[in-house]
Amino acid sequence: MLDPYKQLQEHFLQLSRLAHALTFLQWDQLVMMPPRGNEARSEAIAELSSLYHSQLTEPALADLLDKARAAEQDPERLASIREMEREYRWATCIPSDLVKAKSLAGSKCEHQWRSQRQDNDWSGFLSNFKEVVNLSRVEAQARQTCNSEIFSTPYDALLDLYCTGDSSSLISEIFTTLKTDLPPLIAQVVEKQAGRTREFNGRFSKAAQQRLNRKLAVILGFDFEAGRIDESSHPFSTGDIGDHRITSRYRENDFIDALKATAHETGHAAYEGGLPLKWKHLPLGQARNMSIHESQSLLFEKQIFLSKPFLNFFTPEIHTHIAESDAYDCQQIWLNSIKVSPSYIRVEADELCYPLHVILRYEIESALINGGMEADDLPDAWDEKMQTYLGLSTAGNYKDGCLQDIHWTDGSFGYFPAYTLGALNAAQMFSAFRRQHDDWQELLGRGEIIPIRQWLEEQIWSTGRLLDSQELLQAVTGESTTPRHFIDYVRERYLEEQY
Amino acid sequence: MLDPYKQLQEHFLQLSRLAHALTFLQWDQLVMMPPRGNEARSEAIAELSSLYHSQLTEPALADLLDKARAAEQDPERLASIREMEREYRWATCIPSDLVKAKSLAGSKCEHQWRSQRQDNDWSGFLSNFKEVVNLSRVEAQARQTCNSEIFSTPYDALLDLYCTGDSSSLISEIFTTLKTDLPPLIAQVVEKQAGRTREFNGRFSKAAQQRLNRKLAVILGFDFEAGRIDESSHPFSTGDIGDHRITSRYRENDFIDALKATAHETGHAAYEGGLPLKWKHLPLGQARNMSIHESQSLLFEKQIFLSKPFLNFFTPEIHTHIAESDAYDCQQIWLNSIKVSPSYIRVEADELCYPLHVILRYEIESALINGGMEADDLPDAWDEKMQTYLGLSTAGNYKDGCLQDIHWTDGSFGYFPAYTLGALNAAQMFSAFRRQHDDWQELLGRGEIIPIRQWLEEQIWSTGRLLDSQELLQAVTGESTTPRHFIDYVRERYLEEQY
Repeated sequence: MLDPYKQLQEHFLQLSRLAHALTFLQWDQLVMMPPRGNEARSEAIAELSSLYHSQLTEPALADLLDKARAAEQDPERLASIREMEREYRWATCIPSDLVKAKSLAGSKCEHQWRSQRQDNDWSGFLSNFKEVVNLSRVEAQARQTCNSEIFSTPYDALLDLYCTGDSSSLISEIFTTLKTDLPPLIAQVVEKQAGRTREFNGRFSKAAQQRLNRKLAVILGFDFEAGRIDESSHPFSTGDIGDHRITSRYRENDFIDALKATAHETGHAAYEGGLPLKWKHLPLGQARNMSIHESQSLLFEKQIFLSKPFLNFFTPEIHTHIAESDAYDCQQIWLNSIKVSPSYIRVEADELCYPLHVILRYEIESALINGGMEADDLPDAWDEKMQTYLGLSTAGNYKDGCLQDIHWTDGSFGYFPAYTLGALNAAQMFSAFRRQHDDWQELLGRGEIIPIRQWLEEQIWSTGRLLDSQELLQAVTGESTTPRHFIDYVRERYLEEQY
Repeated sequence: MLDPYKQLQEHFLQLSRLAHALTFLQWDQLVMMPPRGNEARSEAIAELSSLYHSQLTEPALADLLDKARAAEQDPERLASIREMEREYRWATCIPSDLVKAKSLAGSKCEHQWRSQRQDNDWSGFLSNFKEVVNLSRVEAQARQTCNSEIFSTPYDALLDLYCTGDSSSLISEIFTTLKTDLPPLIAQVVEKQAGRTREFNGRFSKAAQQRLNRKLAVILGFDFEAGRIDESSHPFSTGDIGDHRITSRYRENDFIDALKATAHETGHAAYEGGLPLKWKHLPLGQARNMSIHESQSLLFEKQIFLSKPFLNFFTPEIHTHIAESDAYDCQQIWLNSIKVSPSYIRVEADELCYPLHVILRYEIESALINGGMEADDLPDAWDEKMQTYLGLSTAGNYKDGCLQDIHWTDGSFGYFPAYTLGALNAAQMFSAFRRQHDDWQELLGRGEIIPIRQWLEEQIWSTGRLLDSQELLQAVTGESTTPRHFIDYVRERYLEEQY
């Protein structure tokens, strides 16, 4: 008979193999599968998800976790048990009827949203969305109840699914600063950039862009022996040990868009590839949370790729691979790539406006879940906040307003803050790297990414889930997440145009 | 409580979803996965296979099958129960220790074979292969014992795994005719073709070939909304409902090789795509066996694609897509494509020599399993038979002799006959089609494949496993598998050069 910890290890190893199957079936569904394969695929994914859930919630685990915890002294093993327990509790603390009801309501709402968004049909959407909000409230309360020592509000219990370790009180404080500092900064930058950016004009072939993007990925340390780059309508990153799958998206009239996506997804893949093999297939060996994950992708995209010295270094590659790009010198490519301009759509927003899109969503979703707002109030709240934060009205324009994102349609409330926490964490981490590496500009200017990767691997990737996200920030940067470094960095890039 | 048949349906539906996951994980492994992904993938596949096996052998099924059989009157449902029972019995009738031991011995032997073949290392191979033969004999005896009313020899019990419905007595009779008729025919054809075929010479780009192969697949009825064509080192076909995945292989100095593979795999996919949806996810709704499956792929490759009228029709497409191919007119392309020449390697063999390669293997493997031959005797037996059937000696040349195939390395004895039964069945089925369609030459000459597909779908694909393979041949062609139609067809093509 194995000791309780070994039994748990074995159990989570089996779970990781089901997770592997789900990961690659879902990748295939988004990247490879022909349209008529969807029915059989969805059924197979549902079956495996249900197998996964029933294995994760096996009642015998509760006892094993208790026994293992009582028997262990080793801090790493205790951390490993803590993370196993977290997975187990999070899966068991809401009744399976609720899981099923939310999944059904979410699928229906998401499915119909795809056409309702195009039709600007708010009232059609609302009729499904109310149920999604109701069930998410019930879920949030149930999750808060069974973890009442941790969560101060129901919304915090949902937030924890994506940003575990980052509380709503911390986020609210950070977002208050950003709401104050960013709008005047945006106005200054827009004025400064006026007439200096120049839209790309030309046909940049997809095949040439694909070769260029592979080159970028290699420079950023992506290992094609342990991964692939493909194409999908929304770039994403997934995979397992030794097999990291990222995607990019190619526009024939713009060669920077795909490069940003490739740099971003290479950052996600780098984090996954640097996770500690000594805890492989265990919860402790996984990525910490989405606010850390997003920090790694944004660090690769913003702090590395879009830096002046790196883009200086990389422009000759652009010119070599895409002959038509030589109408733009490196200064012009850089300026075009950092253009700031308030607009309606979050996923197209620049680095300065993006946090305001997120803050708007955070304020709305926390109120929806905690009960300060009803689903009916969403369009007005959206319009009012867009006007306040970005000076744009979405009155009557639902499709470019509150119907633009997929996240809420299936009840993924609590996800949005990860994007901006990630941006702040990236700036804060890179600032710590700069303090320890005087030659950081030279490294970027020579395309030498290895020292940055080594530092990130040592400081962040190799720690898995040993620390919670704010402990990790403290360990790496000496402070918990703060907007200060982000503000400094965007001033340096967008106002001083130094970096 | 569902009735027993409904419970069985539900159980096999769940199994089919695990099978779906395995199918696409294995496809990905061969077509997409980067090298370093192999470890995690192999572990996930092993886990799912073991889950599949334990669900298929659940003891409660025996009782459910008995109850369902007793309660049913409907012949289709009884056939469905019969096929479920077959799957269940075949999975349960050998002890799990034996399954495991054979799997381990097979993996080891196959793994080492990859280098031993290159090194021409017979004695190294033999040391592993003896164990594979021993365990396969034990397996064959166990399978024969638990189905003694069906199988007259232990080898028949293994043959049944691939060619269920085709007995070794039928096969031996057929092969005796082929052994007599083919060698003199080959000599005549070689003489007739001498000096008239001309090796392809040129660089035919892969990208152009890929476009040409997609075109061929479309003409042959492949639906890209319900499938993909990719590339792999050995062409194969797999998939599920609405998602048929085939691969081809491109040689830059030969554009016919990939086209043959594409036509072949399109035939496999067509059969899968035409299986009866009313029995979807049930054993009854699956492809009959490998000797029928191979007949469909060979019919597409040989009877359709390599026919003179079809290749006449298709040559302008070749010239359009591959400019360098216009050094060869359609008569020359056809002659080159049907060149006959005895050689060592089965997978490279032409249509006339191929059956002799299979007969040699059949005679050896049946003797190995039934006890008439020992593993040590293999090289001598191989050499002797190669000299008799094809006039070539493999003395001392193991890598081009008895070490050339993967099949035996993991104990897949009983598979080889399917290739030649498939070739005979294809000729026999197409001969029935010709008897019912006077305009068959015109159809091929216009590239009109729909009437052929409709006939095959109605006669074969839509029947799933309702009939056993020889019943199916009887129903479609009026007789069980016979070499007569194949001999007539190859005389017509290779001696008379009429088709």
